[in-house]
Amino acid sequence: MPHINVDENLPGIRALLAFSPATASPMGELANLLLRSNEGLSMADRELIATHVSYLNDCFYCEQSHGAIAVCYLNGNTQLVDQVKEDFNKADISDKLKALLTIAGSVQKGGRYVTPEQVDNARNFGATDKDIHDTVLIAATFCMFNRYVDGLAANTPADLSTYPLRAKQVAQNGYGNYIFSSKQPTQET
Amino acid sequence: MPHINVDENLPGIRALLAFSPATASPMGELANLLLRSNEGLSMADRELIATHVSYLNDCFYCEQSHGAIAVCYLNGNTQLVDQVKEDFNKADISDKLKALLTIAGSVQKGGRYVTPEQVDNARNFGATDKDIHDTVLIAATFCMFNRYVDGLAANTPADLSTYPLRAKQVAQNGYGNYIFSSKQPTQET
Repeated sequence: MPHINVDENLPGIRALLAFSPATASPMGELANLLLRSNEGLSMADRELIATHVSYLNDCFYCEQSHGAIAVCYLNGNTQLVDQVKEDFNKADISDKLKALLTIAGSVQKGGRYVTPEQVDNARNFGATDKDIHDTVLIAATFCMFNRYVDGLAANTPADLSTYPLRAKQVAQNGYGNYIFSSKQPTQET
Repeated sequence: MPHINVDENLPGIRALLAFSPATASPMGELANLLLRSNEGLSMADRELIATHVSYLNDCFYCEQSHGAIAVCYLNGNTQLVDQVKEDFNKADISDKLKALLTIAGSVQKGGRYVTPEQVDNARNFGATDKDIHDTVLIAATFCMFNRYVDGLAANTPADLSTYPLRAKQVAQNGYGNYIFSSKQPTQET
């Protein structure tokens, strides 16, 4: 049960965003800027970083939601997303993305855990300043989103079949106002 | 030395925000909404929560910066801010704020550490849904800001006399574009 009185028909973070539409707006903008771009990192790469950090933070709602969105960008490859969550070094992804996921994992523990060696390793596999910046900020941002969701004990749908449905909408339309504000929320969106 | 190539004349997070003005914009808006309000929690309360979480995350730049801003709102009471950082239960603050700082400390560890008992305790001392929401989101947001700063190893001024100067500007003007974007940045602002 959520710690505060929110709309029980809205799942996870959506109920919190509807409770506080003012803060929902910049949070949605930040999510769109960080996750809905193919500049340097692909949208799939970005969602995989978000999913991995959410997995490490044990945030079931975010891990399932963003994992399902990554699956959409990866043509339905659920197995790859599961591997990235649990042990990305064994996953069929680039060495560059493995190096960036290592940095993201350090950020999840705390900013000071990122080492120059981790950054040099990412650069050796082709990561740019922007790739490193975006990786750190995506990981840091999900340390916020995950804590917002679980710190207020937002409702987490137990029915796993609902996540791919909502993921498809995000993959098609982005993190729009229909998610990140109280305007016209419905159970399905 | 920062992990990426940023303007060395800008301290802490300001160099990162100048590196990425697009993401700086919603981050600044979120900071303004959460910290520059006296609705329920005062601006001093809000900065104390931000300072305590930054202290727990061992983010020297944020802890010093937001501690100095709190001092501005508390008529120069540096001792109170230091007490809140280190052991808020001994500080001369309300029981309500102590209960909310307990929740913020749980959020810093991870969202699932917040307990119904902690929330009930805050309510017993007069905390509203909005107070609890804002406390959790401020704490979660500083888990993001702290990791952004230290995860990219942003330059942290060692000269402690510079923090009160910048704090005074924030206390007067808020988290404006002059901080959160690359527009007209100077070393002093």
